[in-house]
This record gives sequence, structure tokens and C-alpha cells, in this order.
Amino acid sequence: MPRYKLTIEYDGTGFVGWQRQENGMSVQQAIEEAIAAFAGEAPVIKGAGRTDAGVHATGQVAHVDLAREWDGDKVREATNALLRPHAVSILAAERVADDFDARFSAVKRHYLYRIIDRRAPLALERHHAWHVRHRLDADAMHDAAQGFLGKHDFTTFRASQCQAKSPVKTLDAFCVRRDGDVINLTCSARSFLHNQVRSMVGTLKLVGEGKWSAADLVSALDAADRARCGPVCPPDGLYLTQVDY
Amino acid sequence: MPRYKLTIEYDGTGFVGWQRQENGMSVQQAIEEAIAAFAGEAPVIKGAGRTDAGVHATGQVAHVDLAREWDGDKVREATNALLRPHAVSILAAERVADDFDARFSAVKRHYLYRIIDRRAPLALERHHAWHVRHRLDADAMHDAAQGFLGKHDFTTFRASQCQAKSPVKTLDAFCVRRDGDVINLTCSARSFLHNQVRSMVGTLKLVGEGKWSAADLVSALDAADRARCGPVCPPDGLYLTQVDY
Repeated sequence: MPRYKLTIEYDGTGFVGWQRQENGMSVQQAIEEAIAAFAGEAPVIKGAGRTDAGVHATGQVAHVDLAREWDGDKVREATNALLRPHAVSILAAERVADDFDARFSAVKRHYLYRIIDRRAPLALERHHAWHVRHRLDADAMHDAAQGFLGKHDFTTFRASQCQAKSPVKTLDAFCVRRDGDVINLTCSARSFLHNQVRSMVGTLKLVGEGKWSAADLVSALDAADRARCGPVCPPDGLYLTQVDY
Repeated sequence: MPRYKLTIEYDGTGFVGWQRQENGMSVQQAIEEAIAAFAGEAPVIKGAGRTDAGVHATGQVAHVDLAREWDGDKVREATNALLRPHAVSILAAERVADDFDARFSAVKRHYLYRIIDRRAPLALERHHAWHVRHRLDADAMHDAAQGFLGKHDFTTFRASQCQAKSPVKTLDAFCVRRDGDVINLTCSARSFLHNQVRSMVGTLKLVGEGKWSAADLVSALDAADRARCGPVCPPDGLYLTQVDY
């Protein structure tokens, strides 16, 4: 069966997350239903990142096998037409080799986390950024974040329900940059543990508030103890931006 | 009575527009009700720009008179707390002189219009930009837009229901800049006619498509004939970003 690679943008606000669940509409289900409606079959798609409820994507990647050979653009256009009620858009669809696997072939995943630190609530960016009411020291956060780089046991920054076999991951980059009231945190790794980005960002906020030093963060990482993690930050500010193969 | 200047951000998507209307919730009404709830009086606020349904703001300005003398920060905090269900946020509230008028004291208004030109529908930017499915020539649009600068009779780019006494306005700046799939159009003037920005942007799109030349645009402007205007673009991409005094 021909295999297709899908590149996907979505607003995670109204979804229970990427993955199919009993308790509501997932991004996966929305796309599968749209493909089923035009292709006349019931395919299962597999995503590179299983984003949680409320997490967004500008570059999620998934693969799907279809019985018939379609033009990639036709798959994109037909799926988008049927996805219309949902805030999900197929940016690209292309024919790939049968051994391409959106999850296991990925060599790097890139996430963006957006914080807006100002007194006033968010109107335009509601659900699309984390609103922090006091000014954070973004430079201190950037410096501390460099302590995450390299190969570590990330048990401290891993959700208790995480199903990964090993807590050891290698973080390639972590940048924190202020642009006015917006703080953009970007990080890249081959793969991440469940809730790892939100756990790291929530802990970095303590550094931005001056409550933790960079050394405190390294000490929490080295402890490999979930109890040493800062408060996990909300999903609203998180975006899966790119997956490299 | 002490007068306060309010700087306001809002997502215009769910509103009938800035101004109070019979047919639904306006931004003005949402703010007036919030102020009434904390101040115990029923003030009328007056905005610098009467934005249409679906038009957003990152820097709308309004003034309001309150019977009591309040601290500006208190006005902002209390109003925001009561505005919570609405996507409206008071960015700043400050005490101003009694002769400050948000509408008539304004010396310059700044608007941003966002176009995203790509094949795939918008998921994250739905209602926050104009989705154009084919690539536009942003440089040609910028060059043509310079023809709008200066003092002109803008009858061609004025809604038929516009209530301004004169169709003559002076446009100070009009920039069109591409950033990836996003085209940002910014324009500034002391004041604008009803639908003037959306009429100008809709006509500039014809230039971006290669259907009109810069000379066609100047000819339409000089004709002072509403029938010569291009299709008015949707409100979704328009933002009132700043008002100068």
C-alpha cells in the first residue's frame, strides 16, 4: 500500500490531544475521519509527537497508508476540504517510501514554548501562550537552560505516566529569547519524554522569577527525582514546530 | 468628573464590532458593563476607532469619565477581572486631562492587515488573518501602495454608509512586507474613512495578483468613484495597533 507523509498544523485548544481517546475529539481522529470520507477506507495515521490536550502544532508529521495511489496534492486538498469544521490543516502530503515511519524515522523534534509576561490578561493570544503576570528574567532562563543540554537522565522532568523505556534523552538545543512582552523558548532533541518540555519550562520560570539559580536547576536534574521538578506549565503555549528525518 | 484613558486589546471575532448595537455584544458594551460592575455607575466610553465586526485591536484607545477618583491601575485590574469571559483586555488605564478625547484628540491611527498566502487553510491563524490561496507579489503591492500616500479624495475606497463629512484624507505611510507566508500591510493616517483600509487592501490584492498595475490603482483613486474599488477584504486580518496623541 502506498504510504503518505502528512505535515500538519493545528490549534490544540478544542482537542483532547493528538491521540485518539474515548473522552473527546482528537486531532488524529479528525484527520482519520476526513481521509476516510474521501478515500472510502478507514486508515490509521501515526504521528511523530503525541501532543497533549491544548498543545498546538505548526509542523506535526504523520504517515498513513492508503489502498489507492493518489497524487499528494489531491490527498492534501481533499483532506483539508473535509477537515473544515476543525482547526486542523494539512500543509503538505507527499508519497514516501514504505519504510518511512513518522515516529521512528524522526531524527529531531523541535518545540516552541511562548510566554507573555505582562500585567494585563491575554485577549488575542488567549490559549496560544502562557500568561505570566510578572516580568521574568529571560537571560537568566537562557543561561540556566544550557544546563539541560547533552545526555541526561531526565526523570525529574518526566510525567509519572510516561511510558518511555528509558528516562535518558539527549537535548541538542535550548534557547530563550525575549521579544517585547513575548518570551520564546525553543528546544530540540531526537525525542522527548512525556511532559518533558512543559516540565523544563515550568522549572525555568522559577529561574526567571529569581527563585532558583542555574545551579539549583542542574541539581534538580542530577537528582533524577520527579519531586524536584517545578510546577509543570500549561499546554497553551506549546507548539510542535518541526520534525526532521 | 475624572477622565481615564484606556488602552485596549481585543479579539474581534465574536463581537458585532467596537460600537454598541442592537444585534449582539460589542466591545464597547463588554467594557462598559465591566466598569459598571465595579464602579457602581453606568459610564459611556468613547473609542478612537469604531472597528467593524471581526476586526481586532492591539492598541485601541478609549476614554471614560467616572464619578470617583480611582487609581489607574485599580481601574485596569478591576475591569479586567470583570471582563474575563470576553476576549478583551485593558492594557493600561491612566488619569488624563478633562479635555482629552480618545477620538478627536488623536493625531495618528495605525493599522496592520495580515495576509497569509498559501495553499493550505489556516488552523492557528483562523479569524486572525486573510487566507489567500495563491502567491501574491508583495513588492508590487508595496510599490503600488505608495500611490495612496498624501492628501486625496478617497471616495473610491469609502463604504457607501460612511458618515464622514469629507472624503478627503491624508495617508502618511503604507508599507507591505513579506515574512515567509505572511504579508504584513501597515498604514498610518490622522483618520480613516469607513472601510478605507479594507478597501485599499482588497484593491492592492489585485495588484499582488498581477491583475492591476500601480497606474490602475492611481487611476481608480483619481476617479473618486466607489464602483472603481476592488473587492473589500474580510475583517479577520485587520488590527488597530496604535493611536497617537
